[in-house]
Amino acid sequence: MIAEIIATGDEIRSGALVDSNSAYIAEKLEEIGVEVARHSCVGDNMDMLVSVFKEVSARCDIAIVTGGLGPTVDDLTTAAIAKAAGRQLVLDETALRSVEDFFKARNRKMTYSNKKQAMLPEGCKRLDNLMGTAPGFVIKTGRCSFFCIPGVPFEMRRMLSDSVLPEIEKSEHKKRKFCFVKTLSTFGLTESATGEKLVGLSDEFPDIKLGLRAKFPEIHIKLYANGEDEEYLRNVLEKGCEWVLQKIGSRVISSNGESMEAVVARILCDRKETVALAESCTGGLISNRLTNIAGSSEFFLFSGVTYSNDAKMKVLNVLPETLKAYGAVHEETVKQMAARARDVAGATYGLATSGIAGPDGGTDEKPVGALCIGIATSERVKGMRFCFPGGKRLMNKSIFATTALDVLRRELVYDL
Amino acid sequence: MIAEIIATGDEIRSGALVDSNSAYIAEKLEEIGVEVARHSCVGDNMDMLVSVFKEVSARCDIAIVTGGLGPTVDDLTTAAIAKAAGRQLVLDETALRSVEDFFKARNRKMTYSNKKQAMLPEGCKRLDNLMGTAPGFVIKTGRCSFFCIPGVPFEMRRMLSDSVLPEIEKSEHKKRKFCFVKTLSTFGLTESATGEKLVGLSDEFPDIKLGLRAKFPEIHIKLYANGEDEEYLRNVLEKGCEWVLQKIGSRVISSNGESMEAVVARILCDRKETVALAESCTGGLISNRLTNIAGSSEFFLFSGVTYSNDAKMKVLNVLPETLKAYGAVHEETVKQMAARARDVAGATYGLATSGIAGPDGGTDEKPVGALCIGIATSERVKGMRFCFPGGKRLMNKSIFATTALDVLRRELVYDL
Repeated sequence: MIAEIIATGDEIRSGALVDSNSAYIAEKLEEIGVEVARHSCVGDNMDMLVSVFKEVSARCDIAIVTGGLGPTVDDLTTAAIAKAAGRQLVLDETALRSVEDFFKARNRKMTYSNKKQAMLPEGCKRLDNLMGTAPGFVIKTGRCSFFCIPGVPFEMRRMLSDSVLPEIEKSEHKKRKFCFVKTLSTFGLTESATGEKLVGLSDEFPDIKLGLRAKFPEIHIKLYANGEDEEYLRNVLEKGCEWVLQKIGSRVISSNGESMEAVVARILCDRKETVALAESCTGGLISNRLTNIAGSSEFFLFSGVTYSNDAKMKVLNVLPETLKAYGAVHEETVKQMAARARDVAGATYGLATSGIAGPDGGTDEKPVGALCIGIATSERVKGMRFCFPGGKRLMNKSIFATTALDVLRRELVYDL
Repeated sequence: MIAEIIATGDEIRSGALVDSNSAYIAEKLEEIGVEVARHSCVGDNMDMLVSVFKEVSARCDIAIVTGGLGPTVDDLTTAAIAKAAGRQLVLDETALRSVEDFFKARNRKMTYSNKKQAMLPEGCKRLDNLMGTAPGFVIKTGRCSFFCIPGVPFEMRRMLSDSVLPEIEKSEHKKRKFCFVKTLSTFGLTESATGEKLVGLSDEFPDIKLGLRAKFPEIHIKLYANGEDEEYLRNVLEKGCEWVLQKIGSRVISSNGESMEAVVARILCDRKETVALAESCTGGLISNRLTNIAGSSEFFLFSGVTYSNDAKMKVLNVLPETLKAYGAVHEETVKQMAARARDVAGATYGLATSGIAGPDGGTDEKPVGALCIGIATSERVKGMRFCFPGGKRLMNKSIFATTALDVLRRELVYDL
C-alpha cells in the first residue's frame, strides 16, 4: 500500500506556518503499519491543486489531504479534488444539518459561505467533524482514495483517529492485519546506550520490531507488532514491554505518552503531596513546565528563581560561607537551596538546581554543562552532580530541567 | 521563476521529526521575491529520490534540497542527484581539504566515510559549509538548478544566507531586480486592528506591498519593495517604516527580528539596570524567557514564582489583609508583589503577574484570561488590569508573559 500526505494552504507554502500536521499523520499511519512514501505541500491555487491530485491519483493507494475545507474563497480543496476526479459538487444534507447544528449550539449566525462547506463531491463518503464546521470526506479517483480533512490541528487529530485510520484499516488495499505499537518514553540513557541495553529483544520476541526515536532530551522506544492474530499480538507486545521494563524500568517515564512533568504532577496529586523549587541555572523552566499542567496549584507551591548569589542568600538563606567555600554550583549549595525552598513553602519536597548553562561562565573544574541538583524530603537532603558536555544554552536548560524532574520522579517512584 | 523545496530524510518522512527547514527557506525565498510553488519530502530511498529529482528538473527553475549530505550510508542526496543528472561523482580536492581542516581544528579523527562527503557530482559548483563537515553544491539538470544543502538547521541557515540566496539573486532566471523586505515585530494589537491602523500605507507608498503575519502572540508587519532601482527601493522602504512607526510606534518591539525578551535584555544591559520578578499565573515563564538570553545574569536577579497565597505572603510579604480584601488577582496585590521583588533582590525594576490561566479558577468577576500586572521603579509602583478572553492555558500563559515584558519594555523606552 503506497501512501502520501498532502498539506494545502498558502500559509504553509509561503513558510508563514510550519506544517506539523504531516509529521503527526505520518507517525500515526506508521503505527497502523502504513508507510508514507512522500509528503507534498501546495498553496491555495486551483491549477496546482488539481495537478498534484492528478499525479497522486496515478501513483498512490491512499492520500491524506489537510486544509482547504473552510468557508472562504481560499478554501479550494473540495472543488479541486472534484475537478481532478471529474465529479460535480452536490449538497450533502447531513453535512448541512451538522453545520447548522454547530452554529445553533454556539448561538452564532450561519453565513452563506458556511453553507459551501456542505457541498461535497458526488460519490464521496462524508467523514463527520465533531470539533468544527468543516466535514471531511473520502473519495476514490484513479487508484487512490483521498482522505480530505481540516488543517486545524485539533480537528485534524480527532478526525484522523475517529474516521480516517479506522477506514484505512478496513480498506481493500490493506490485508486484514493488525498493527500495534507501544511507545515508552525514557530519559537518562543515550540512544546508543538504550539500544545496547535492549540487545536480545529481537531474539526473545522475533515478532516485535524495535524503533528508537530521539525526542530531545528524551528517547522514545517504540515496539511494533504486525500480523493477523490480534490476541497473540497484544499479548506479545505486553510481554515485550515487560521485558523492556525489566531491563531499564527506572529510565522509563511513561508508556502512554505522558510527559515528565505530567507524570510527576499525577503522582504528587495522587498522594496529596507538594513540591517547592529553588532554580538557578534552569531559570524558571522547571516551574514553567510544572505550571503548564492544568490544576498545578494542587501540587506546586513556589519556585525561587535565585539567579544571583545575593538572591540565594536573601530569599533562600544560603549561607555566605557555603557560597564562599564551594561556589554556587556545588552539592552543598543546592542542598541548602532545596531544604530552604521546602521549608519556606511548607512543601513535601524541595528540589534545587545550580549549574553552568553557557555559553560563558565555564571553568576547568565546572565546565559548561555542569549541573548540581538538590532534593529535600522530610527525612533527608541529598546533593548530586551531573555533567552534560557539548550542549548549547537552551539545550542545557532543557536537559537540566528534565534531569531535575527525573530526580524527583525517581524519588517518588523508587525512593532512589 | 518557479521554485520548489525538497526535504529529504527518513526521520522527516516517517514523522519522527517535524520539518521546519522548508518553512524557513520558503520565507527567505519570498523575501528575495521568489515564490515557492511546492514543497516535497521523501525518505532516504535512492529510487524515490531519483524519481523526485527527475520530476522537479522538468518543471522548475530552482529547487532547494535539504539533508542527505552526511557521511553515513543513509545519506543519498549527492549520489541520487548525480544519477538523476547522469553525472559521475568526483573527488573535490577543496572540499576534501575543508573536511580535513574541520577535523584537525577539533582534534578529531577523520573517518573514511567523511571522505565520501568530498565526492561531488561532476560539473557542480561547490558551496562551502563554514559550520559543519558536509559541503553543499549547486547543479543544473533539465531546466532546474538544484541547491543541495545540509539538513542540520544551523548549517542550513548559514549556507542559505551565505551562498544560496546570493547565487539565486544573480542567476540568469531572475531579472536583475532587487527585492527588499523589512519586518516589524509588534505586540498589543490584533491582526485586524493592525491592518486598520495601516490603512493609507499603500496610497502613500504604492511601491510597498504590505503583509501581516500572526506569530502568536506577536503580529509581524512585513513591508516588501521590489524593483530595479536599488537606492529608490531602500529609500522608500525606510520611509514606509517611519510611516508605520508614526502610526503604531509604541506597539513595535523591533525591526530586526529581535524577540521581546532580547529587546528588554538589551536595554537593561545598555543601562546597567536590573529586574526582579514576582510571578504567579505565568509560573516561571517570564524568568525562563529572560534566562534564555545568554549573559542574563547581567540584568536578571530573581523571580519569586509564588503560586500559592502562602508563598506570596512568606516570600514576598504580601499583606494577608490585602489578599483577604482583594484576592490574589488584583492591582493592589501585584503592586505589593512587584515592590517586594524589587526590594528583596535590590533590582532597578520589579515586575509582577497574577491572573487566571485556566482552564478552571475563573469567576464572573475574574474570568479565565484575567491578568493583573504590577511594575515598581525607584519612583513609583503601578498596577494594571487586562483581560484576554477565550484562550487556552498555554496560550494564556504565553500572552500573559509577553504582556508583562511589554509593560516593562514600554516603561524602559517610553516611560509609559
